[in-house]
Amino acid sequence: MTAYSKTLLQKFSDLALKVGLDLQPGQRLLILTTLDCAPLVQEVAACAYQMGARLVDVMWDDEELHTLRFQHAPPDSFHEYSTWRTSGILECLKRGDAYLRVYSLDPNLLQGYNPEHVAAYVQAEAQHVRPVYDYRAEAGIPWLVITFPAPGWAAAVFPDLPPERQMDALWESLVSLYHLEAPDPAEEWRRYLHKLTARAASLNQKRFAALKFTGPGTDLTVGLAPGHAWFGGWNPGRDGTFFVPNLPTEEVFTLPHRSRVEGTVRLTKPFVNPGILVEDVTFTFAEGRVVQAAAGKGEGLLQKVLDTDEGARRLGEVALVPNSSPISQSGRIFWNPLLDENASCHLALGNAYRITLSGGKGLPEEAFAAAGGNLSSLHIDFMVGSGELDIDGIAEDGTSEPVMRTGEWAFEV
Amino acid sequence: MTAYSKTLLQKFSDLALKVGLDLQPGQRLLILTTLDCAPLVQEVAACAYQMGARLVDVMWDDEELHTLRFQHAPPDSFHEYSTWRTSGILECLKRGDAYLRVYSLDPNLLQGYNPEHVAAYVQAEAQHVRPVYDYRAEAGIPWLVITFPAPGWAAAVFPDLPPERQMDALWESLVSLYHLEAPDPAEEWRRYLHKLTARAASLNQKRFAALKFTGPGTDLTVGLAPGHAWFGGWNPGRDGTFFVPNLPTEEVFTLPHRSRVEGTVRLTKPFVNPGILVEDVTFTFAEGRVVQAAAGKGEGLLQKVLDTDEGARRLGEVALVPNSSPISQSGRIFWNPLLDENASCHLALGNAYRITLSGGKGLPEEAFAAAGGNLSSLHIDFMVGSGELDIDGIAEDGTSEPVMRTGEWAFEV
Repeated sequence: MTAYSKTLLQKFSDLALKVGLDLQPGQRLLILTTLDCAPLVQEVAACAYQMGARLVDVMWDDEELHTLRFQHAPPDSFHEYSTWRTSGILECLKRGDAYLRVYSLDPNLLQGYNPEHVAAYVQAEAQHVRPVYDYRAEAGIPWLVITFPAPGWAAAVFPDLPPERQMDALWESLVSLYHLEAPDPAEEWRRYLHKLTARAASLNQKRFAALKFTGPGTDLTVGLAPGHAWFGGWNPGRDGTFFVPNLPTEEVFTLPHRSRVEGTVRLTKPFVNPGILVEDVTFTFAEGRVVQAAAGKGEGLLQKVLDTDEGARRLGEVALVPNSSPISQSGRIFWNPLLDENASCHLALGNAYRITLSGGKGLPEEAFAAAGGNLSSLHIDFMVGSGELDIDGIAEDGTSEPVMRTGEWAFEV
Repeated sequence: MTAYSKTLLQKFSDLALKVGLDLQPGQRLLILTTLDCAPLVQEVAACAYQMGARLVDVMWDDEELHTLRFQHAPPDSFHEYSTWRTSGILECLKRGDAYLRVYSLDPNLLQGYNPEHVAAYVQAEAQHVRPVYDYRAEAGIPWLVITFPAPGWAAAVFPDLPPERQMDALWESLVSLYHLEAPDPAEEWRRYLHKLTARAASLNQKRFAALKFTGPGTDLTVGLAPGHAWFGGWNPGRDGTFFVPNLPTEEVFTLPHRSRVEGTVRLTKPFVNPGILVEDVTFTFAEGRVVQAAAGKGEGLLQKVLDTDEGARRLGEVALVPNSSPISQSGRIFWNPLLDENASCHLALGNAYRITLSGGKGLPEEAFAAAGGNLSSLHIDFMVGSGELDIDGIAEDGTSEPVMRTGEWAFEV
């Protein structure tokens, strides 16, 4: 058993509630998590009550139950879904409760099961959570995803350590990435978030028409939607509050144009989605659509994911992260989208964020799509950054300027 | 950590699903439980899938979060309720899912907190779960409550053992009470349940107008509703299925008349309700209503519970259990209603079960009340049985016959 220091758990809770969610007195808090995260969840609950939360609700999940399902459930049952979860989340969000996900996932959880079953499960999940994501974005509900160790995940990150050391090693990594040893991690993060916001503001001034990605195996032009807005750090919430949807966060991101992506991109890390691992992936785009997808491992599953819906083959996000970011410099693959996406420039297949289009909030689907925004039940990040990646910003008139060179920012803010 | 034998957990699961719930292939299963029960819950899930369940849903709860709430939440917030839980349960029941509660509760959980807060919490809980209980009964949904060890509970039952032995000792007690060492516990229970059913049938033939309880500190006459029906063992479910709502079960029970209870009863065990402990209790009834309630410990809380609603002061159940029942013979107080009520003749304050009135299913509230059935948001059992209790059955014409003598059945079936 990892002996979690109460002081570090308290600092982590403080960071999540004050910086991440900007939790207000009198608000309720909904936490979605897995059984392994209980030590942090309990500390977060205590901290939230002390900040004036009227009720802390926790919706627990257990990875082991998913494994048992894939081992034993009837073959035609994998589209069945626990709809009470999504209807319950919506019920909480409609009251304005803050939404915290404390995330821990064994990346190999669903490895080796029938890909048809896994795909049916992934699609049912995507379809049912979509209204939650839509409502959350529309209503400006504060939400945050953070991550916490679990044995299966720790084993995947530190396969060379003896099992009894893996959890401690992962926790030490997280303590470092969250700056929990700092006297006041919340203050540390606030300073850093202001820098990200400044970076996004400077990109907004440039009004690029496209970004050109060049690197080993990669020659990709990603058109940006004309009204795109860059975000980094803070998101606007309700009543003048600001929240940070992911911690750690190292990215600035915006809206690619759903039909203006051309060329080939080689992923620099595996493609990880709920318990699915696909390695050595290359995508080729034409008119914004993935027309070819190859993988060294897990290609069958990848094709099923791409076939989820029309938008699953188009980009919904482009995000820039310098190669010198702390997560990247740790030199590890964490097999965890929250960490790995903040270690690397990345793109996402699937649904785009309305906030990345100026005036996009509340726009009907057709209008958002017409402005270049992609629609899908999925949103899956994939990593393209490395120390060998160059990015150029292309202006409307075709002139270009360096945005990144060998994975680092090429302009000052 | 208690090392649970997989074989015993499998037998326990088999017993719960086959005998308790009569789970049907293609049915879904909803489990309500606490984090400590994970080892059994996971085994039940595997077993349910193997029996053809299409999805096993688990709604987890964590005792520690309740403690944190009572320690830190705002004083005026204790009526706030996680309504997604009850709306989620109803959603599942309306689909016909089987409902399993794997129960584990520290009897001292809410001890020492502000009784106003505890009462607000208990009342909110009672108010919100009422529609669930009503629907479940009305629709013939199979439901079952079983129990499993947790550290706080084990410490209360075995305070004299060293902490590292308490959980094992409690598990050994449960293994014995559930007959899990038997080659086929399910078959063992089926035989026993048939005996209970026969006992209920023979009480039904007697058509008593009242039961008179006599013992130390007790002289109480409990009128039975004219159309009362005795139950024990199996309950009728849907489509010819039969389920057993509690395991273990040792009781036969029926419907007291809500306004025909007279006299005084001294409880033979403490009064235990969600984390509340009230000791040395005596109730005096007049015209069915508790007109006086005294307690050696926890009287303030008891009064608040009685003030929940009008029906909280009237009886909703009368249940007979011989003093020689296995739980009683274990000689322990388990501080757990499920076990303690099956160790002792008991009565319940609060809501009555429709099934204990012939033709009661589907009856409107007014008609049920007119027939003698009690209505309340509460249903709290309290124990009155002992080796010193005599019970007489009083016929319409005032003649009487022995039902129990010194705590044992006084007639053959």
